[in-house]
Amino acid sequence: MSANSFGQILRLTSFGESHGQAIGGILDGFPANISISLSDIQAELDKRKPAQIGIGSNRQENDQIEILSGIFQGKSLGSPIAFLIRNTDARSQDYEALQNLYRPGHADDTYSAKYIHRDHRGGGRASARQTAVWVAAGAFAKILLNAKGIDIKAYTEQIGDCKLEIPYTDLDLTHIYTDRLRCPQETKSLEMQNLLKQTAKDGDSLGGVILGLIQNAPQNLGEPIFDKLHARLGMAMLSIPACRGFEFGCGFKAASMKGSEHNDLWLGKSNQTLHNYAGGIRGGISTGEDIYFRLAFKPIASIGKPQKLLSSTGDLIDYSLSGRHDICCVPRAVPIVEALSALVIADFLLLQQCSRITNTHTNAH
Amino acid sequence: MSANSFGQILRLTSFGESHGQAIGGILDGFPANISISLSDIQAELDKRKPAQIGIGSNRQENDQIEILSGIFQGKSLGSPIAFLIRNTDARSQDYEALQNLYRPGHADDTYSAKYIHRDHRGGGRASARQTAVWVAAGAFAKILLNAKGIDIKAYTEQIGDCKLEIPYTDLDLTHIYTDRLRCPQETKSLEMQNLLKQTAKDGDSLGGVILGLIQNAPQNLGEPIFDKLHARLGMAMLSIPACRGFEFGCGFKAASMKGSEHNDLWLGKSNQTLHNYAGGIRGGISTGEDIYFRLAFKPIASIGKPQKLLSSTGDLIDYSLSGRHDICCVPRAVPIVEALSALVIADFLLLQQCSRITNTHTNAH
Amino acid sequence: MSANSFGQILRLTSFGESHGQAIGGILDGFPANISISLSDIQAELDKRKPAQIGIGSNRQENDQIEILSGIFQGKSLGSPIAFLIRNTDARSQDYEALQNLYRPGHADDTYSAKYIHRDHRGGGRASARQTAVWVAAGAFAKILLNAKGIDIKAYTEQIGDCKLEIPYTDLDLTHIYTDRLRCPQETKSLEMQNLLKQTAKDGDSLGGVILGLIQNAPQNLGEPIFDKLHARLGMAMLSIPACRGFEFGCGFKAASMKGSEHNDLWLGKSNQTLHNYAGGIRGGISTGEDIYFRLAFKPIASIGKPQKLLSSTGDLIDYSLSGRHDICCVPRAVPIVEALSALVIADFLLLQQCSRITNTHTNAH
Amino acid sequence: MSANSFGQILRLTSFGESHGQAIGGILDGFPANISISLSDIQAELDKRKPAQIGIGSNRQENDQIEILSGIFQGKSLGSPIAFLIRNTDARSQDYEALQNLYRPGHADDTYSAKYIHRDHRGGGRASARQTAVWVAAGAFAKILLNAKGIDIKAYTEQIGDCKLEIPYTDLDLTHIYTDRLRCPQETKSLEMQNLLKQTAKDGDSLGGVILGLIQNAPQNLGEPIFDKLHARLGMAMLSIPACRGFEFGCGFKAASMKGSEHNDLWLGKSNQTLHNYAGGIRGGISTGEDIYFRLAFKPIASIGKPQKLLSSTGDLIDYSLSGRHDICCVPRAVPIVEALSALVIADFLLLQQCSRITNTHTNAH
Repeated sequence: MSANSFGQILRLTSFGESHGQAIGGILDGFPANISISLSDIQAELDKRKPAQIGIGSNRQENDQIEILSGIFQGKSLGSPIAFLIRNTDARSQDYEALQNLYRPGHADDTYSAKYIHRDHRGGGRASARQTAVWVAAGAFAKILLNAKGIDIKAYTEQIGDCKLEIPYTDLDLTHIYTDRLRCPQETKSLEMQNLLKQTAKDGDSLGGVILGLIQNAPQNLGEPIFDKLHARLGMAMLSIPACRGFEFGCGFKAASMKGSEHNDLWLGKSNQTLHNYAGGIRGGISTGEDIYFRLAFKPIASIGKPQKLLSSTGDLIDYSLSGRHDICCVPRAVPIVEALSALVIADFLLLQQCSRITNTHTNAH
Repeated sequence: MSANSFGQILRLTSFGESHGQAIGGILDGFPANISISLSDIQAELDKRKPAQIGIGSNRQENDQIEILSGIFQGKSLGSPIAFLIRNTDARSQDYEALQNLYRPGHADDTYSAKYIHRDHRGGGRASARQTAVWVAAGAFAKILLNAKGIDIKAYTEQIGDCKLEIPYTDLDLTHIYTDRLRCPQETKSLEMQNLLKQTAKDGDSLGGVILGLIQNAPQNLGEPIFDKLHARLGMAMLSIPACRGFEFGCGFKAASMKGSEHNDLWLGKSNQTLHNYAGGIRGGISTGEDIYFRLAFKPIASIGKPQKLLSSTGDLIDYSLSGRHDICCVPRAVPIVEALSALVIADFLLLQQCSRITNTHTNAH
Repeated sequence: MSANSFGQILRLTSFGESHGQAIGGILDGFPANISISLSDIQAELDKRKPAQIGIGSNRQENDQIEILSGIFQGKSLGSPIAFLIRNTDARSQDYEALQNLYRPGHADDTYSAKYIHRDHRGGGRASARQTAVWVAAGAFAKILLNAKGIDIKAYTEQIGDCKLEIPYTDLDLTHIYTDRLRCPQETKSLEMQNLLKQTAKDGDSLGGVILGLIQNAPQNLGEPIFDKLHARLGMAMLSIPACRGFEFGCGFKAASMKGSEHNDLWLGKSNQTLHNYAGGIRGGISTGEDIYFRLAFKPIASIGKPQKLLSSTGDLIDYSLSGRHDICCVPRAVPIVEALSALVIADFLLLQQCSRITNTHTNAH
Repeated sequence: MSANSFGQILRLTSFGESHGQAIGGILDGFPANISISLSDIQAELDKRKPAQIGIGSNRQENDQIEILSGIFQGKSLGSPIAFLIRNTDARSQDYEALQNLYRPGHADDTYSAKYIHRDHRGGGRASARQTAVWVAAGAFAKILLNAKGIDIKAYTEQIGDCKLEIPYTDLDLTHIYTDRLRCPQETKSLEMQNLLKQTAKDGDSLGGVILGLIQNAPQNLGEPIFDKLHARLGMAMLSIPACRGFEFGCGFKAASMKGSEHNDLWLGKSNQTLHNYAGGIRGGISTGEDIYFRLAFKPIASIGKPQKLLSSTGDLIDYSLSGRHDICCVPRAVPIVEALSALVIADFLLLQQCSRITNTHTNAH
């Protein structure tokens, strides 16, 4: 089944627990004969590094990717690309006391109910550490998108109640990753940083919102009925730990709009409208305009303040969590949003190639 | 591929264009030896009938389901259940003038770009008529859920800016379908009806919000990483035409909450918390508490007010849409939300049975 | 799951019991904008008609296909093509006495064990009647293959111990369907017919062998490891009722050959060898040469001679089968072999289009 | 797509080229809370070691499995089990001269046509080395089968024209792996060994036949129509490099039998027949009797005798292959047949658990 796999033509199967030997994945369906720069892949992975925001987790996840297959002489073979990232600096002893305890807001209790046997160390399989695998796979997908001129971006739009109100069309999105919080407006980022520092002092945590953006996609991606472009994007985004909601175009605001307002007015060219309120998708298929969407993240469950834990025998236990934890997952989720977007779009791009009978097989790249 | 199929063990494959011969589907993976009442199936289908709100579409979709296979002597065979609903009262001539025109807010342009050849009559494959197939399939799924005591509900929470503010836990949800708008509070429903009438007079349309609720699900549904319960629910809901967003638990509100607020406090039993802000899902797996979520719908694209259409040659054309159209899709989407929820939960229920090695094969029902 | 579905990009999902309302299927993934001649589809279906061999089943399966979706104005829409064939002339009363009896060589006992509730009429879901659905779907696949110049043939090579010893390369394969037994050599066909007549008189039945042939396939179909072209062909052929074995190229004879004999010698052009002992497939991928394979069929289980039946309570019952039965399934299986071959090849053809990044989307047909 | 994956509930995704960094796989869907002995897994892998027959390949594939995830404290977690086997003792320089040459009987030309960029070293992805991954995965599947009392065996029945004529029911199958050729009859094994020695001297190679046997399977495995037990077994077996044919029960011999001969006579208990000519499968579903089948293997393509190679530019080149090669793949394929059988049966066993609604979730193991 697809529980640990994602995608149809370009398909990632992932593995690994937070404190196990390694995390990694197999990316199947990547076309052959494409040049791969391993330093580009590593550079994407580095975007996800923790601790760079100066606040929160001090776990030194100096993640180095090791490619095991699928690439030869710098080019893809068309065979599965397997890769792994060794787990280092995992302080499993921090978690020993938690072996039979369920933390509030974590998946400890549901994993115990479902699997009986559970790896309690650092969240095990439920840890967000898994997302490093997605970022690595997404880096490969981006190579395909680059070849087609498709551009993918994401940025922090909100942390706690501190919100960037300017629409993406009025922002300079070229330097997102030079900002600690992956926020494209410096003054707002500084506000957010102050908020995070205060929250850290309070022993608390925050949530937020990310905006995702896909530009220059062709006017034919996505499938009708059950594989609509936004449904597949939504499923991908809702897979990110702590994600609580997904919307595209006007999203939840559309519920209060009138048809005469929301209907995108044609500008006289087939794929251009005045406002693009549809978010670049009509009938589940890309319109050729910008595709944009938002994800909401809940605050991180691990907080400094003491909270009661539940024991497997049903008792409430006073506990202050040690371990190293982020205050807000949003900045680190930005490259994850990009990676999953790239995987979704690349998959639909390849899938679209099956939907026509071509006259000649083009071998070009 | 899965473009027209949904589910893994219990899998619906759907077919049909709005004005073609018939719509229908094949439901594969339905367990054998289960009693099926066809009148129960038809009753679910009747919930989706249009025109019952007295406002909007007058198309008489008197949908009668015909079962072609999979049931013998009133019980399921374990073979695929195929069914169809003939398309009647389809006034295709209403659409003749639209053959080479793209309506604003519809999928006319994207279908043309993707498929070149398009059935322009009544939206063709992109029509919401397809959802009748989902409701029929969901009626079968509900038979499985009933056997397990799992209960599924949905209701209209918002139409336009008219919003029901009372939480679901304080509402009487037993008579949702006796209300024209599928709104569980009569005074609010009347407000909504007045708003709809005024909007109809204005030649405009409205969106809204539906709340979905799943009760008595066991504490083990959903799979980690890419098949999280909420991700699969989200994908299903985002497949509904006009859906623009999905959230579960506190949803987008969680973005502004602090960890100390949002973390669900244990009540001392493994699957009970004080607030259930998590919406009954932790780590992608059901907690045993109520699962609840919200969907936002954009206003219906077809409106009475004149709007410019785009011709396939790039010209803007003045046009007033004829045809019969709803003012708001929300009331008719309520049974669709129920049906897709039932399909998702029944699928995970069957899938969960593969996750353990049983000692004995139980044949019971 | 895939129990009632076949194919990845071009995917058939089938339904129907032998004596139910109808049999039929949904063919998903068929490219848009392709001209479809319904009389061509019906003509393929007519090839499978029984009773034309003048010996055996008298069931008048005058199968008429009804298309429910996916085609508009004579061209495919890219949406699922649903079709059905009503079950007529089904004499269910012939089977009444068999409700709790298991016939030797039939699937009565295994279906009862697996599903508990069973449609005993005419074999129910286990009936070879289902193959009419495959032939209809294969007729669509052939339209795609014709557009690419790929040719598919099959013929009767052996019935009982009467065997056509001439290799396919020395036979005239243009008039296979004018022969009652689908045997390309008249004298051998007459021998087979005499053998069948004698067998009918004896109240017995026969098996046989079919040779399948795919010509002009490109040099890139099939996938390595688990989706080898011959593995997928083998799986398809072994799905045909009564099929007991599949081999390609030299098949089982290769087991006794030496490497120096079996290795195909190059003729100096990349895709041509002296003998093509490999059957047109190397490493699971088509070589561009003829793809040929053989299937063995067991004799039909329903025979005139009395045989003991097993009751569901474990008793042995003397019984002479009534009902209308073929003496040998091989002639009627010939178009089925063609249809499944066409489905496999068309699916790999579309799949291969995903394996490269194309520079431009070609819309042609 | 499934090109590098196998199975539906228990699903192996494999990776690796013969001379790359490593081969390995991810086994997804393995139930949680099952005790795993790594030495048992390694012991299965050791059965496949080359060079133990004293004839043929001297590559020291001292394959050591490394488990990366899915197991914690000696028990499965229900998360994907990832494992790898490093490639050591790969003498890539042996293959340098072959970079632009296509060997007869190998997949060099088809891989070049399909992928353009090819790893020529040791066959790359097309190498039989990949089967070590299958054996490792099969070792996990066997743990599940052992818990159910299902037993899987395979043995060498024929090498070249030297054939073991005794049926499996009359052989002692307890010591297959103590025989160098995995042949259960010592005198026949010695004959085969002499034949292999002579063939090695002649610079040639041989094919052969393996018999596979599955005992104590329940009476409900396999799905109708497209996922018949024998069709899935056949697809698995045809995936083994050099396999040219698959048959079950009487196989190709059934083609010459009469119905009155071939029909299995009931013995008066539901799942017992006089001869089990059906090979333990009726209608694609296991009967509860022994499941047995045969696979034919062509002779190994790499031979000592000089043969002409084809250059990528179309020239014929005289060449004597160096490198280390087996004379016959059959003995080493025996554990592969077992492993794939175990994967197929375990997958159907889990899948069958989805086909009923259970009253209670049994957590036992």
